[in-house]
Amino acid sequence: MKKYFITDIKAGDFIDDIFVLSEKNLAQKKDGNNFLNVTLSDKTGTIKGVVWDNVDQVSAGVSSGDFVHIRGSVNEYREAFQLVIKNMEKCSADVINPSDFLPTTSRDIESMFERLLKITSSVKTVYLKKLIQAFWNDKEFVREFKTAPAGKKMHHAYIGGLLEHTLSMVSLAEKVAGHYGGIDRDLLIAGALLHDIGKTKEFEYQFRIDYTTRGRLLNHIVIGIEMVDEKLSGIKDFPEDQMVMLKHMILSHHGMREFGSPEPPKTIEAVILNYIDEIDSKVNGIRDFMAKEDPNEPWTSYHRLYERHFYKGKKNQ
Amino acid sequence: MKKYFITDIKAGDFIDDIFVLSEKNLAQKKDGNNFLNVTLSDKTGTIKGVVWDNVDQVSAGVSSGDFVHIRGSVNEYREAFQLVIKNMEKCSADVINPSDFLPTTSRDIESMFERLLKITSSVKTVYLKKLIQAFWNDKEFVREFKTAPAGKKMHHAYIGGLLEHTLSMVSLAEKVAGHYGGIDRDLLIAGALLHDIGKTKEFEYQFRIDYTTRGRLLNHIVIGIEMVDEKLSGIKDFPEDQMVMLKHMILSHHGMREFGSPEPPKTIEAVILNYIDEIDSKVNGIRDFMAKEDPNEPWTSYHRLYERHFYKGKKNQ
Amino acid sequence: MKKYFITDIKAGDFIDDIFVLSEKNLAQKKDGNNFLNVTLSDKTGTIKGVVWDNVDQVSAGVSSGDFVHIRGSVNEYREAFQLVIKNMEKCSADVINPSDFLPTTSRDIESMFERLLKITSSVKTVYLKKLIQAFWNDKEFVREFKTAPAGKKMHHAYIGGLLEHTLSMVSLAEKVAGHYGGIDRDLLIAGALLHDIGKTKEFEYQFRIDYTTRGRLLNHIVIGIEMVDEKLSGIKDFPEDQMVMLKHMILSHHGMREFGSPEPPKTIEAVILNYIDEIDSKVNGIRDFMAKEDPNEPWTSYHRLYERHFYKGKKNQ
Amino acid sequence: MKKYFITDIKAGDFIDDIFVLSEKNLAQKKDGNNFLNVTLSDKTGTIKGVVWDNVDQVSAGVSSGDFVHIRGSVNEYREAFQLVIKNMEKCSADVINPSDFLPTTSRDIESMFERLLKITSSVKTVYLKKLIQAFWNDKEFVREFKTAPAGKKMHHAYIGGLLEHTLSMVSLAEKVAGHYGGIDRDLLIAGALLHDIGKTKEFEYQFRIDYTTRGRLLNHIVIGIEMVDEKLSGIKDFPEDQMVMLKHMILSHHGMREFGSPEPPKTIEAVILNYIDEIDSKVNGIRDFMAKEDPNEPWTSYHRLYERHFYKGKKNQ
Amino acid sequence: MKKYFITDIKAGDFIDDIFVLSEKNLAQKKDGNNFLNVTLSDKTGTIKGVVWDNVDQVSAGVSSGDFVHIRGSVNEYREAFQLVIKNMEKCSADVINPSDFLPTTSRDIESMFERLLKITSSVKTVYLKKLIQAFWNDKEFVREFKTAPAGKKMHHAYIGGLLEHTLSMVSLAEKVAGHYGGIDRDLLIAGALLHDIGKTKEFEYQFRIDYTTRGRLLNHIVIGIEMVDEKLSGIKDFPEDQMVMLKHMILSHHGMREFGSPEPPKTIEAVILNYIDEIDSKVNGIRDFMAKEDPNEPWTSYHRLYERHFYKGKKNQ
Amino acid sequence: MKKYFITDIKAGDFIDDIFVLSEKNLAQKKDGNNFLNVTLSDKTGTIKGVVWDNVDQVSAGVSSGDFVHIRGSVNEYREAFQLVIKNMEKCSADVINPSDFLPTTSRDIESMFERLLKITSSVKTVYLKKLIQAFWNDKEFVREFKTAPAGKKMHHAYIGGLLEHTLSMVSLAEKVAGHYGGIDRDLLIAGALLHDIGKTKEFEYQFRIDYTTRGRLLNHIVIGIEMVDEKLSGIKDFPEDQMVMLKHMILSHHGMREFGSPEPPKTIEAVILNYIDEIDSKVNGIRDFMAKEDPNEPWTSYHRLYERHFYKGKKNQ
Repeated sequence: MKKYFITDIKAGDFIDDIFVLSEKNLAQKKDGNNFLNVTLSDKTGTIKGVVWDNVDQVSAGVSSGDFVHIRGSVNEYREAFQLVIKNMEKCSADVINPSDFLPTTSRDIESMFERLLKITSSVKTVYLKKLIQAFWNDKEFVREFKTAPAGKKMHHAYIGGLLEHTLSMVSLAEKVAGHYGGIDRDLLIAGALLHDIGKTKEFEYQFRIDYTTRGRLLNHIVIGIEMVDEKLSGIKDFPEDQMVMLKHMILSHHGMREFGSPEPPKTIEAVILNYIDEIDSKVNGIRDFMAKEDPNEPWTSYHRLYERHFYKGKKNQ
Repeated sequence: MKKYFITDIKAGDFIDDIFVLSEKNLAQKKDGNNFLNVTLSDKTGTIKGVVWDNVDQVSAGVSSGDFVHIRGSVNEYREAFQLVIKNMEKCSADVINPSDFLPTTSRDIESMFERLLKITSSVKTVYLKKLIQAFWNDKEFVREFKTAPAGKKMHHAYIGGLLEHTLSMVSLAEKVAGHYGGIDRDLLIAGALLHDIGKTKEFEYQFRIDYTTRGRLLNHIVIGIEMVDEKLSGIKDFPEDQMVMLKHMILSHHGMREFGSPEPPKTIEAVILNYIDEIDSKVNGIRDFMAKEDPNEPWTSYHRLYERHFYKGKKNQ
Repeated sequence: MKKYFITDIKAGDFIDDIFVLSEKNLAQKKDGNNFLNVTLSDKTGTIKGVVWDNVDQVSAGVSSGDFVHIRGSVNEYREAFQLVIKNMEKCSADVINPSDFLPTTSRDIESMFERLLKITSSVKTVYLKKLIQAFWNDKEFVREFKTAPAGKKMHHAYIGGLLEHTLSMVSLAEKVAGHYGGIDRDLLIAGALLHDIGKTKEFEYQFRIDYTTRGRLLNHIVIGIEMVDEKLSGIKDFPEDQMVMLKHMILSHHGMREFGSPEPPKTIEAVILNYIDEIDSKVNGIRDFMAKEDPNEPWTSYHRLYERHFYKGKKNQ
Repeated sequence: MKKYFITDIKAGDFIDDIFVLSEKNLAQKKDGNNFLNVTLSDKTGTIKGVVWDNVDQVSAGVSSGDFVHIRGSVNEYREAFQLVIKNMEKCSADVINPSDFLPTTSRDIESMFERLLKITSSVKTVYLKKLIQAFWNDKEFVREFKTAPAGKKMHHAYIGGLLEHTLSMVSLAEKVAGHYGGIDRDLLIAGALLHDIGKTKEFEYQFRIDYTTRGRLLNHIVIGIEMVDEKLSGIKDFPEDQMVMLKHMILSHHGMREFGSPEPPKTIEAVILNYIDEIDSKVNGIRDFMAKEDPNEPWTSYHRLYERHFYKGKKNQ
Repeated sequence: MKKYFITDIKAGDFIDDIFVLSEKNLAQKKDGNNFLNVTLSDKTGTIKGVVWDNVDQVSAGVSSGDFVHIRGSVNEYREAFQLVIKNMEKCSADVINPSDFLPTTSRDIESMFERLLKITSSVKTVYLKKLIQAFWNDKEFVREFKTAPAGKKMHHAYIGGLLEHTLSMVSLAEKVAGHYGGIDRDLLIAGALLHDIGKTKEFEYQFRIDYTTRGRLLNHIVIGIEMVDEKLSGIKDFPEDQMVMLKHMILSHHGMREFGSPEPPKTIEAVILNYIDEIDSKVNGIRDFMAKEDPNEPWTSYHRLYERHFYKGKKNQ
Repeated sequence: MKKYFITDIKAGDFIDDIFVLSEKNLAQKKDGNNFLNVTLSDKTGTIKGVVWDNVDQVSAGVSSGDFVHIRGSVNEYREAFQLVIKNMEKCSADVINPSDFLPTTSRDIESMFERLLKITSSVKTVYLKKLIQAFWNDKEFVREFKTAPAGKKMHHAYIGGLLEHTLSMVSLAEKVAGHYGGIDRDLLIAGALLHDIGKTKEFEYQFRIDYTTRGRLLNHIVIGIEMVDEKLSGIKDFPEDQMVMLKHMILSHHGMREFGSPEPPKTIEAVILNYIDEIDSKVNGIRDFMAKEDPNEPWTSYHRLYERHFYKGKKNQ
């Protein structure tokens, strides 16, 4: 449907496509007439726009948050692109494809899910197998798990990001369990699978990715444990020790109290889970950051959270 | 039953009473004969003891962890008291009174519980009232709640300590809610009541006060939320917003991630709960620390956790 | 006098009222003619303005920092209001009411002061009573104490804020002293009364609220102790121990060295004072922050200092 | 040679074997005669001993740090074993086997080295290959690299520990490079191989494992870069960018300035190296700690550095 | 050559001089025609400029990073100066004087260098003397050492800053060594001389001051040790102990791991070097910050890194 | 008077001299008779002692804290010296010389004071001169200032230590003020002179060095400012700005809030004062620590507060 994305914009383009109207502000020209400043967005970014003609009529027809059909042309203004909008009309959410407006994993969701099913089906420990099956049997959960992001900004911050991150984690868990002897492989895989499931409720991700009230007040760690508890209540005689160690992996996976884990990892499996989560979230987060930066520069700009510039290397030029 | 407590010991006393045998070690004198070093404890403290005669026979009859009937006399040795034990025999747990061996609140448990019931019965918000009632209807919970300690060492570290701390908190909550207008009093009281209930499972407190495996791996914050969830599953239509704010109070009551709260307090009620918990735990912890120190000194010794000496003042001399 | 406040501004209004001229900048239009950009403020906020006509003459008559009489109309420009000023003239500080230009407590200063007098008159300890009386007898102190703010931005950041905060603290001190036995109530009340008196000199608050040079170099904690010392020099035989414990409460009331207390609280009364100061400053600071935010949103924006969003709850909508 | 190790000691044993004389102190009995307190050690631990007879003669023949031939019997004294020494004579370092006196990897050094050679021979990047070869051609380096420990206490703190850790790291590097596309595999393997080589000079490990003066003043990170520089000086035209990225991996492998890295990791390969070093050092360190603890207890004692107890699980009982 | 500097700009000036073209952006006027926004800089600051006429032709002739010959006049626009450019042409780097475009020490480089030579020639310790001489014999090093800055922003952030800082440090080292007996004066002077030499490679400072890739990945501490190693490789029999203590001074001169030193100072000389570096960098950094602020204000604006306002005092008004 | 000091003790010595009885404990031999364990101290250290005969009579005549006249002989017991005491009698504090029992500066107090007077007499600024004179005119202050220590353990922890530290600081202040132009030399010298005067009241140092109650509750920073205030109250028209800057130097001289300064240094003079205090306290503290360590070892033992070993260097062997 949508063919024109903000990331591809060039001065001189003529645009006839759908965007989210993120912001809208009426203003007054020096001659006393109104004009309309707007911000438009799609999954690839945001752009400022301006309406000079029929301002009051156009403005009355749209609200911030609407999907809007835009017709207009691209100028440069003060070192940035600006859309000079000829026409803007609200359009129904029914006709739009959400994945045009939210960033989405570049990988195929169904095939990732198939691979995840396959690895997790190798779990032999009886009760862990039952617990995993309980999640896969929950259609609502599976639907959300396939689309949820793993973050708002930090890493895997796109539709399908939670699945992509979880698959990568489960696969790393398998490799590390094979590397060291004496690891409880099934427990490690179950922990990797379930460590972030609370993110299905911590975020909303229908039209934008943001924290839910429940997410901000309870955190995905606590929500995740509640979700496991709910499934456990349907499994008779789940061994106490296994249950406690599994929940411990979920609650300790941030590694330190400073990062939101009420307890630090106290089993070998929990220690490993914490570090493979660090690897996978950092590799993804740094690479996404690098990908958004000027490809001609060997260094990225300053990453505020990680407090450093990253080096892409001269090989990438 | 037990009449002689370690805190009252004087050189020259003759002892005929029951203690916990905390540690036991066989050793060898220079003349090649064995002797037995032991550590004994009751709710008031610990004392070293030694068996010089019938060593092998005495040693064979007792294991560390047993309750033992001791007969012997008190000497001073290397600036500390030492029990020279004539006889030591295991005795059954049935005949002993646990409260002789664990430190216990100095206040009356039943009358504290009555006062708590009275304050919490003033909660009018329908669903919070139902939730509180669900806890009071759970006999097993009430039994544990009345005896659990609120800490291993830090504060209210004695049988009945959780109840004493909770009653004080609920009462402070009432006062502060009355002080400021616009506080959700019922929510604050419910939060104060439930904030530490996870401690009923975080500790074992039958014969000694120590962390359980579940307590060390899951922490009373997470256990407390699980306990609330279990009761909520029996209450139909509990309002989502109230539920999330109540659980948020439990999980944020340590105030900072560094202290084990996965999220900091984000509502006024959660902010207040955190500070009245600070007041009540510190006032109790510091006073208990002061009470154990030399009453003739205006200053306490150094408190390792709080990293300071405390001043009891010349008025206390 | 002043009838029109910045907070009430609407596009299209015509304005004829007095403001503080916070900033003034001459600039040049492309046609070579000058125009004047200004920032105006009153107790409710700030607004940008512009003078297109008679620029040089208008500009010559006013300096930044002046009270100015403005006549002009309100436009919208770049998503904000802008005053298009027809006339701007300096007016004398004599005719203006400072409370129009500085934010002021919403409560009645005299009745708050009466209540404070009443509570502090209940102090029976002889020398503490003398010390408190020495402050009440100092007319200059009382005048400043009634008007000083308790902060520049953080909490009670308005005229009368110090009095409002002190009254709340003294009242909380009374409640907590009643809650626990064995507290030196008079000492706690005296500490609550005097803990922030240094703020009368740490801030200037005649036409704007800002730090004084003395405040920035010496801090209200040290200034407060100097003020107590000055009064103590007029009281014969003040008991050394009481004096030291009282000053200790002032210097330790921030709780930690990191927060500016040279020593942490080392008496029970100092520990309690620190926490009730935390409660009262946070409750006030968070509520003021909430009150300035969009009333239709359940969450506030991000609070930079407390590093979180706050939840006002759906009940507030 | 040596058949009797301290870890196997039992009361009543008669001993006739070689130990390191770690400490020696003359003391005086109440009857005025001298006796000799000593501490003896081998790779499995330490034991206290005492000489009652021929004290002056025995004492004159040995110095602390000597290897000594001991004859005597094992008693228990004050809850610990004590050697009652009949005879103690110095013996030459020539006749002893150092691996009896230093803890040593449980794995075969030569076969570990073979596996390491094989993996590193898969590096194809020309100059990295040359650099690795330069190290393998350095006989002195190889000798030290095969025996050096990777720590004094923390992890792999035994002869052969550096090799064991390096082999594990290189193998993990290979697995993680295969897991993610787009990693410079050869660079990551070279970094894993060289990241800790400075430890060959940071420690002395001939008769005991301890820091060298150079190690304490310069740190293995800086020593490692010096060692790479020395080899690089023999390789013509080594590409500047590759050299800088490789050294960066060595200097940033502790991850944060707080942990001794002058710069944090700024390339994807350096980020990964840091985390696999965390995994391998923690897994080894925690397991060694667990192995030394009571096998009948599910929890370890408190680990001072990691600030927690670790859970071995009931499955291990 | 260059006579007109940005710091001296006044509205109405006509400009005919050379600048660095830092940024260049084509934009579109509302009438559809292009104009050109540029940023120009010299050693004294930056200024915005605009080209209204012959835009495409002018734009085609220059690239960002070029030295450009500008002709135009100065206007005020939105409270800042703006250059309205009539003509802009690229000019060759040959005809320009770099010191016009980079901020430069206010002191004479050659006479500072003479003084440094004199002090360092007083070093009598044979091998330290040889090492210092090896640096002075390296023409390339001397050339860079005389021009390098000691920082990008923090302190001595100008051409010649490294020399100025080093001279001040060496002189302070001499004074402090004289103040205390028993200091190894020659070692302290050598450490002061060499502590920051890595900055000659950490920064580029030909046309702008910025970090090099090597600087960002390796840090001047490690580069400095490499540079010392390179000179040491040419000096036979340099005493090991002296070498290690000297390098230790370089690597520990930031005082704490948090500030980038892999080890903290462990010798008296290293401890002193760290503190005189603190004094000299802070005194210079704070004074430069003060000098750039409004001379009529007793307080500076907020210094983000040092997290405070500085007081210049009323004496400076 | 006292001729025999603990530091010079050798096995076999017979002792007839005065010590402080630091601790006293009655204990019981296996035969049922009492004996007395004591700890004795003088300025050079502590020694354990034991009384076997006339125990009850000897014990009754002395209390802990007394000066006692001892007669007895030195044995070795368990790797330490032990005094076998024949006779122990209390002796009057009148006949003892306090400097025998407290560690004292190795330098001459009067000549240090003369040098300090000379440097401070060079202060020309009128009001600073008056203030300094006010302190020198205060006989009580001078007496305490000459004997007070500058610390309990950290640095200059001996009688005369405050004077020694202050003299060194004032001299360093002079040197650094001369090094940099534009420093207010008189202010810096006055700050160096007065920065630690609160230590005259923070410590007691008559028979032992320990914190006073006032010292622990108010800290030498606040006490120092009170002492300055007291002198200022006798000087008419002291300039406000000078007063505030001087007090600011005292309160900010610990450099950071974490170290007890309520504000960080905000003037150049305060910044310098903080660093020269760091230099002088660390140089003294580290050297004293080194001096107490084994002179044959190049490394000191671990310094708990500074968290490192220090290197004395091979040159010292």
